[in-house]
Amino acid sequence: MTAPVGVGFVGTGWMARAHAHALHTLGHVAPLSRPVRLVAIAGRDAARTEAAAAQLGFERHTTDWRTVVDDPDVDVVANLASNDMHLSPSVAALELGKSVLCEKPLASTVEEAERMVAAADASSGLAVCGYNYRFVPAVRLARDLVTAGRLGAVRHVRGAYLQDWAGTAASRRGWRFSDPVEGSSVGDYSHVIDLVRWLVGEPVAVAAVIGTLDEKAEGLHPATVGEDHEDWYAALLRTAPGVTVSLEASRVATGRKNGHYIELFGSQGSLSWILEDLNRLQVYFREDEAELTAGFRDVLVTEPGHPYLEHWWASGHILGWEHTFAHEWLDLLRALDTPGQVPEGLPVFADGLAAVRIAAAIRDSALTGSWASLQ
Amino acid sequence: MTAPVGVGFVGTGWMARAHAHALHTLGHVAPLSRPVRLVAIAGRDAARTEAAAAQLGFERHTTDWRTVVDDPDVDVVANLASNDMHLSPSVAALELGKSVLCEKPLASTVEEAERMVAAADASSGLAVCGYNYRFVPAVRLARDLVTAGRLGAVRHVRGAYLQDWAGTAASRRGWRFSDPVEGSSVGDYSHVIDLVRWLVGEPVAVAAVIGTLDEKAEGLHPATVGEDHEDWYAALLRTAPGVTVSLEASRVATGRKNGHYIELFGSQGSLSWILEDLNRLQVYFREDEAELTAGFRDVLVTEPGHPYLEHWWASGHILGWEHTFAHEWLDLLRALDTPGQVPEGLPVFADGLAAVRIAAAIRDSALTGSWASLQ
Amino acid sequence: MTAPVGVGFVGTGWMARAHAHALHTLGHVAPLSRPVRLVAIAGRDAARTEAAAAQLGFERHTTDWRTVVDDPDVDVVANLASNDMHLSPSVAALELGKSVLCEKPLASTVEEAERMVAAADASSGLAVCGYNYRFVPAVRLARDLVTAGRLGAVRHVRGAYLQDWAGTAASRRGWRFSDPVEGSSVGDYSHVIDLVRWLVGEPVAVAAVIGTLDEKAEGLHPATVGEDHEDWYAALLRTAPGVTVSLEASRVATGRKNGHYIELFGSQGSLSWILEDLNRLQVYFREDEAELTAGFRDVLVTEPGHPYLEHWWASGHILGWEHTFAHEWLDLLRALDTPGQVPEGLPVFADGLAAVRIAAAIRDSALTGSWASLQ
Amino acid sequence: MTAPVGVGFVGTGWMARAHAHALHTLGHVAPLSRPVRLVAIAGRDAARTEAAAAQLGFERHTTDWRTVVDDPDVDVVANLASNDMHLSPSVAALELGKSVLCEKPLASTVEEAERMVAAADASSGLAVCGYNYRFVPAVRLARDLVTAGRLGAVRHVRGAYLQDWAGTAASRRGWRFSDPVEGSSVGDYSHVIDLVRWLVGEPVAVAAVIGTLDEKAEGLHPATVGEDHEDWYAALLRTAPGVTVSLEASRVATGRKNGHYIELFGSQGSLSWILEDLNRLQVYFREDEAELTAGFRDVLVTEPGHPYLEHWWASGHILGWEHTFAHEWLDLLRALDTPGQVPEGLPVFADGLAAVRIAAAIRDSALTGSWASLQ
Repeated sequence: MTAPVGVGFVGTGWMARAHAHALHTLGHVAPLSRPVRLVAIAGRDAARTEAAAAQLGFERHTTDWRTVVDDPDVDVVANLASNDMHLSPSVAALELGKSVLCEKPLASTVEEAERMVAAADASSGLAVCGYNYRFVPAVRLARDLVTAGRLGAVRHVRGAYLQDWAGTAASRRGWRFSDPVEGSSVGDYSHVIDLVRWLVGEPVAVAAVIGTLDEKAEGLHPATVGEDHEDWYAALLRTAPGVTVSLEASRVATGRKNGHYIELFGSQGSLSWILEDLNRLQVYFREDEAELTAGFRDVLVTEPGHPYLEHWWASGHILGWEHTFAHEWLDLLRALDTPGQVPEGLPVFADGLAAVRIAAAIRDSALTGSWASLQ
Repeated sequence: MTAPVGVGFVGTGWMARAHAHALHTLGHVAPLSRPVRLVAIAGRDAARTEAAAAQLGFERHTTDWRTVVDDPDVDVVANLASNDMHLSPSVAALELGKSVLCEKPLASTVEEAERMVAAADASSGLAVCGYNYRFVPAVRLARDLVTAGRLGAVRHVRGAYLQDWAGTAASRRGWRFSDPVEGSSVGDYSHVIDLVRWLVGEPVAVAAVIGTLDEKAEGLHPATVGEDHEDWYAALLRTAPGVTVSLEASRVATGRKNGHYIELFGSQGSLSWILEDLNRLQVYFREDEAELTAGFRDVLVTEPGHPYLEHWWASGHILGWEHTFAHEWLDLLRALDTPGQVPEGLPVFADGLAAVRIAAAIRDSALTGSWASLQ
Repeated sequence: MTAPVGVGFVGTGWMARAHAHALHTLGHVAPLSRPVRLVAIAGRDAARTEAAAAQLGFERHTTDWRTVVDDPDVDVVANLASNDMHLSPSVAALELGKSVLCEKPLASTVEEAERMVAAADASSGLAVCGYNYRFVPAVRLARDLVTAGRLGAVRHVRGAYLQDWAGTAASRRGWRFSDPVEGSSVGDYSHVIDLVRWLVGEPVAVAAVIGTLDEKAEGLHPATVGEDHEDWYAALLRTAPGVTVSLEASRVATGRKNGHYIELFGSQGSLSWILEDLNRLQVYFREDEAELTAGFRDVLVTEPGHPYLEHWWASGHILGWEHTFAHEWLDLLRALDTPGQVPEGLPVFADGLAAVRIAAAIRDSALTGSWASLQ
Repeated sequence: MTAPVGVGFVGTGWMARAHAHALHTLGHVAPLSRPVRLVAIAGRDAARTEAAAAQLGFERHTTDWRTVVDDPDVDVVANLASNDMHLSPSVAALELGKSVLCEKPLASTVEEAERMVAAADASSGLAVCGYNYRFVPAVRLARDLVTAGRLGAVRHVRGAYLQDWAGTAASRRGWRFSDPVEGSSVGDYSHVIDLVRWLVGEPVAVAAVIGTLDEKAEGLHPATVGEDHEDWYAALLRTAPGVTVSLEASRVATGRKNGHYIELFGSQGSLSWILEDLNRLQVYFREDEAELTAGFRDVLVTEPGHPYLEHWWASGHILGWEHTFAHEWLDLLRALDTPGQVPEGLPVFADGLAAVRIAAAIRDSALTGSWASLQ
């Protein structure tokens, strides 16, 4: 019988709940070569951590993250703590040759992210950054279509991440508002930056503006970078092969609940996707014009042949947001079986660093009022 | 410490997977007064049942459903087997005072369903019929709006359940095609009948036609009831208070993957919902017309205040189909804590019987070419 | 120089406005072999008719419809009056060898409609019935796809016409409420019946229920046919080749403004269309499934190659409802150039009669509570 | 009897067709204080102009625009010629005290636009710039909601104009490709700039990139401003009160036919609109959250109380793109009755100049790679 993979968590918040849910789920929906064992969980507050351990099914709990990292039964450390805690436990685990799944943004500064990548490079462990939206079946199908050339040459891309949870004065509390950078829209919404990179390649320059909500939570004003909360930003990105991307992110966009959106226009076709309807992909093929029946196809990505769907239900039965984590862990666990090979699409620390660099360039550009180079 | 609730499964198919997923999930997303223990699972094929037990996390497995029913550690029997197996294990468990969750349709004939209701009436156990779509948050919100009178008097209702999985000759294999009634569209799509009953009350008469796909899977022809496969039906229902409902169901509706749809028109407002986008509810209020801003509101039912959402993620993070089962079990398990009180909205065997009677009336009407009475 | 085609109107209401708009429009958007001359208009009220003549650009006006019919300059009589006026002016004009465009429903009774068809058969004039939705470019494209076999064998069809203008007590005034049949939902919404016939063929039997709003405009009750206003109906139709159609129409469906809807499911593909978004057609091809990119295509029917679009604007510039009439007149006027040949798709009096017969069968079925035969 | 308003056209292209259509339409849908007379039309090609005069219903035609401008029967000159012809006829007409409706963009350079505004300021004539999308009922409703404060303080705005007509090598012919600036996306899509200004106020700074399709109509590259065709641009705009607007326009966005889009996020509500579905407005009110029924309302802007709808059809009958011109002329003609008063919402030459300045700033920013000031 194969030994289980031991998993340890650092962090007890809703990301911990989502990841634990995925690990509980995986065992009974997908065939794994080794079972998963939830060994230990660490949190700052003892009582809350004990409760989390009980609810999420961990064997042990502690208020010291080092105990989790050092635990000999822990093979993979999931770093699900707040952003300022991403660095140390991740590096410590990698130095022990353990694998890490660290939530995004990888770090709050480029310097920290670079240290994390260095640790990953020096380690035999796998270092994954939690860009879970790569694991949405519809997004994976989009990637497959782009890679197969079905859209031709991509011309321009529109990305957005629009929410409204921080749009009222009463909602602006907690750790995300204790600091201008921690939990900012620039960092939090780096998902859309990662999708852009993954789908169409590296940006080389960025022009951006950042906005902050005024005191009464009414209008938006230009942010003083480093001082004001980053509630909104818009950015233009030029990629290596040409002009390509417009981005926008907001946490004060009244009425948008999870408007993580991406739209690609190519010479032979186009596609769009939005997280609120994550099981659908809109695809347009120019070749359909010949028969006068061209139009964006509303593809419900729940067929058995679609990415990851072999593990799930019958056609037409949609998956929830939480299963992005199941797919993420599935690919991570399989990668453990083939050391040295990172499967296509698994976001690693280098991806996390790239996103942090772009976020930094967004801030630079907003600060200087000029284009910032990413080369 | 409280004793766990022991659950036994009869059936190892994809419904077993879905229910097991729910039971694994519940423990770590919602507070339960007693933990759940997956005690035993029964299936016809020994090897397949052993594998299912391993994958789904059951302690024991057997090819004899009586072993599960009789198991002293089993408090609740989930009857997830094919329709012809709904009767005996359910009745046996109820006779032992155990609770049962039986999948729909409750039975293939009215007579069998009546025996099951009689067993339920005579038992101290809870007898639940698996109409899981009552547990979709958006559907529950719809029910709340109707109950609160926000739509005024309901005038007419449109329901449908459109799929296409049986639309090709190659797909028409397996137990659903071994018999004209087992696995028919009339029985399988009784979900929409249940929603109609639950949302607007009892039908008293029905006129219907049933269709069967021809041999080459091209056109649809009138079915000879009792001989042909029931691939499609359409029905008109009159309810006690007036004219109200049109229904249609198909498993050969090319392009529709899970078009379970309901639309209610009331004197003060209207609403519609479709399973393919199960997290959304469309709601119209006539009072909005005064300000010239009336229109169906596209409500994303993922806010903390929405039904069942307190247990889940942040606003805008959609749930998958599978969590209908989690909510179903949540309400069932809570009902065990308050014997004698069936919580509002929990579908019981009497609901299953009512749906079977309507299905029978649909067949009667299709057979005779006249209205069938349900009184 | 070619002599103009003289047109006379019977009726001054909003249909007169819509048809006049079309005739004013045609001259400057499409090449006509003969110009159109608006000769005379007749209405019941002298002052209102004079005003209509001035506004709509008619040379002459009268309160006697015979004056229009007899006018030697009038070649085509457009009968746009209320339903009870459809018979006499249409027959009189046809008896003079003139052409007629009569609004739908052709007549209130089968007997009247039969007399009108007899007059049409005996006349050298063209007798057109105003089913203008055949002239929506998207509907014409749908017809082209069906005719070309792109959907394979049609299996079943869903049609509906849902509005809410008669849903409040205050709105239930005027001639449509002076009589249970005139202006009823069964007759008014015969558009959807015509589309079904045109797209998939003749019904042979019908089962239906009709509903009437109660006094306080709250709930819907079964109508006493011939006595109550017909506010809603639902019908099942069997066509010659098999089971096919479910229909529903309502003028009390709160929130639906012009929900004229049709949905066809075939063995190779499917389509749907709704009047509120009349420039779009949703089309699904099963063959797209092979590449995992099947989905309903949202076709914006405004390309130069689409039906009727050669006369209009650039791609993507949508047309309004009113241009259905322009297309209708375009085909009618062209048909005048080729006597004896009725162009494909032009709805004639025989089509009007067929729809009246189906409406009568709907009433028969609702009255008797049994299926009504149409053979 | 009142004297008619004489209208003269400069230009015979599809804009001439659209404006003539509007003028023919107006007379029979809306009450005008004075009738409209189509006096004369000028075009470069004699034969084509004669044909246009016949088709569109003009009394006279000429190849010299001065003949139209000088015609004593012409009160209003509609300048519908190519962009390089906007200046001279407009100024000449204004100098004669005549009114002008000049298509957009007002001019190709700021200097020309300034001369046109100077001529307008010095004239007793009315000088209107053809931003016809202000006359879409749904857009006017959006403006009314913003003005009434129903959205609270506007925070940020997303605008786009996405088409694909220039996306293939074969399509890149004609005058729009004879010059890098004439007919560029920056100028052509100034509609979206005008809507932004009208709805939320003046931009004060802009950062932009412009792209050009490569020779083989595959990828997009940064444009050399002044040399390359401007096929795409994206811009960030800061307005006087704060950070607000992201814009994007493309004529190579495969699959988008008329994606003119605007989305406003305010503190109390939000709205969005797209030209392809021009009769609809999506509106969100935060106050609806209290009842758990908040969602974007899909408002079909065809009710009698909606802007401009009093002149049209019954509820739910959608209008086409072409009627934006009818509404534009309606407001222009009414403004002639009240000299000195420009009705709210009528776009004048100053609006045209403002849009030209923003277009120039977009080019400046793209050229210099830095923010361009608009103050």
